[in-house]
Amino acid sequence: MEKFRLNILGCGSATCTTQHMQTSQVLDIRDNLFMIDCGEGTQLQMRRMRLKFARLNNIFISHLHGDHCFGLLGMLSTLALLGKTGTMTIHIFKEGADFFKNALDFFAYDMPFEVRFNIIPNAKALIYEDDAITVTTIPLSHRVPAVGFLFEEKPKKKHINREMTDFYNIPVYKLNGIRNGEDFITKDGNVIPNEVLTRPADPSVSYAYCSDTVYSKKVIETIKGVDWLYHESTYADDKYLTARKRGHSTAREAATAAMEAGAKHLILGHFSSQYHDNTRFRTEAMEVFPDVTLAKEGLVLELTK
Amino acid sequence: MEKFRLNILGCGSATCTTQHMQTSQVLDIRDNLFMIDCGEGTQLQMRRMRLKFARLNNIFISHLHGDHCFGLLGMLSTLALLGKTGTMTIHIFKEGADFFKNALDFFAYDMPFEVRFNIIPNAKALIYEDDAITVTTIPLSHRVPAVGFLFEEKPKKKHINREMTDFYNIPVYKLNGIRNGEDFITKDGNVIPNEVLTRPADPSVSYAYCSDTVYSKKVIETIKGVDWLYHESTYADDKYLTARKRGHSTAREAATAAMEAGAKHLILGHFSSQYHDNTRFRTEAMEVFPDVTLAKEGLVLELTK
Repeated sequence: MEKFRLNILGCGSATCTTQHMQTSQVLDIRDNLFMIDCGEGTQLQMRRMRLKFARLNNIFISHLHGDHCFGLLGMLSTLALLGKTGTMTIHIFKEGADFFKNALDFFAYDMPFEVRFNIIPNAKALIYEDDAITVTTIPLSHRVPAVGFLFEEKPKKKHINREMTDFYNIPVYKLNGIRNGEDFITKDGNVIPNEVLTRPADPSVSYAYCSDTVYSKKVIETIKGVDWLYHESTYADDKYLTARKRGHSTAREAATAAMEAGAKHLILGHFSSQYHDNTRFRTEAMEVFPDVTLAKEGLVLELTK
Repeated sequence: MEKFRLNILGCGSATCTTQHMQTSQVLDIRDNLFMIDCGEGTQLQMRRMRLKFARLNNIFISHLHGDHCFGLLGMLSTLALLGKTGTMTIHIFKEGADFFKNALDFFAYDMPFEVRFNIIPNAKALIYEDDAITVTTIPLSHRVPAVGFLFEEKPKKKHINREMTDFYNIPVYKLNGIRNGEDFITKDGNVIPNEVLTRPADPSVSYAYCSDTVYSKKVIETIKGVDWLYHESTYADDKYLTARKRGHSTAREAATAAMEAGAKHLILGHFSSQYHDNTRFRTEAMEVFPDVTLAKEGLVLELTK
């Protein structure tokens, strides 16, 4: 199975505490790192979790509240000091791109790499694609414009059944085609069906990041059938009205979203500093949805089907 | 003795490590907190060291490199969330004030307190004064404009000799004058000299913060006779040329500055991430100057005469 690993760097909300760091996650997809949000202290968490700065080429910013982006300038300046080369793409709303462009100019770092801003819309759209994955924005509903990010692995190649390809003396240069589903024709003109030569591809995995947002049908539509859902749960049942007022969700609402989306696994995070013990988030969510993990700093999850 | 306490929040240099946080210090002078520099993660260090946010009303920024000011936006937004009232004064170069004013507007926090920018010159000047202290900028020599800060306690009041004031039946309303040095005249017209009624005032303490800078005669002139000197020592002897090239000092140069200034105590900090063990900084400095303390995160020093 190819690597599709979620690293939780921070899962607290805006008020700084010693219990949680501000929001940031890193998806490690086959050794390419994709950062989602970059709160203050994110570069330090990268160090603590021994994530390789050089493998980070994309940062996705969900919205322009400080606890989701105040670590960006420090991260970029550290990358400059470390001599990063190539391109860093920051996927961000236009206003954020303007602000950070200006800030980078102001602090006048000699950037040894190019910083590219990919302007994302406040709506559902494909915003990133490579050989392995696509990333689609998820319209959220918060106090300010905000989007989540749906990471989806593309269909994978089949596994070669080495015993059979050896048996038919299939040359190496044919193997890639066979992994893509081609049949093989022998010198005698016999067709060897692809199914004989391969085992099925591994399933593709999907991950949806939804923070910050109220519980929203709009969100659920976009993430139907997702394998793993990270949904914010800033509050528990006792602060239901606060959640509503401040554009956040309760753990129960996050679980409801997971259930209605047909998600397989739910991860809760963005916990308010008002809770010293987060276990009640899990308890309340599990009354609605069975598979619930509480995010915490340093948590590493292998996202399998 | 009245409180004059130095808290080290971070004493690393620009590259982020798990060993040191970026630069910030808090001077606690009679329960008023004065922050010097505010690198990324400073608000978290405030929490860890249990420093009271509500008592912080002045932040001094030495220069506009990220490792000395990237924590400012997070600090101010957390203070807003905590409902701080009154005024926060940020002592900073004009360019910094312009940048942070604009950044605060952009992130559009509903600030329940006023943020006032006190523009400081890149030269020696009195920039702050209250009943207890003065703060004077110290011209430094770095790659960009930079100043240090000299905190000096004003002369303190004398201690009342209660036995004698009782003996002469001195009314309470006279005591403040006597603490300030006045004599007392009895009903019979006898002059009781102040020395009879008081014990000497506690000595006033001074503290100089010098980071980032090369070793500089200009610095030494401004801090002559200082009690406590924090002087950066980014490098040790082995990186003497790097220090020179990058506008920093070695531990030996910091100690030379302390000796030539006639300082009583030296604190070293702003250690490069290239050193995993900082003891050699102390060893090298002590070959020049006897009283050397290595800064470290969480260190609290009572600055006495």
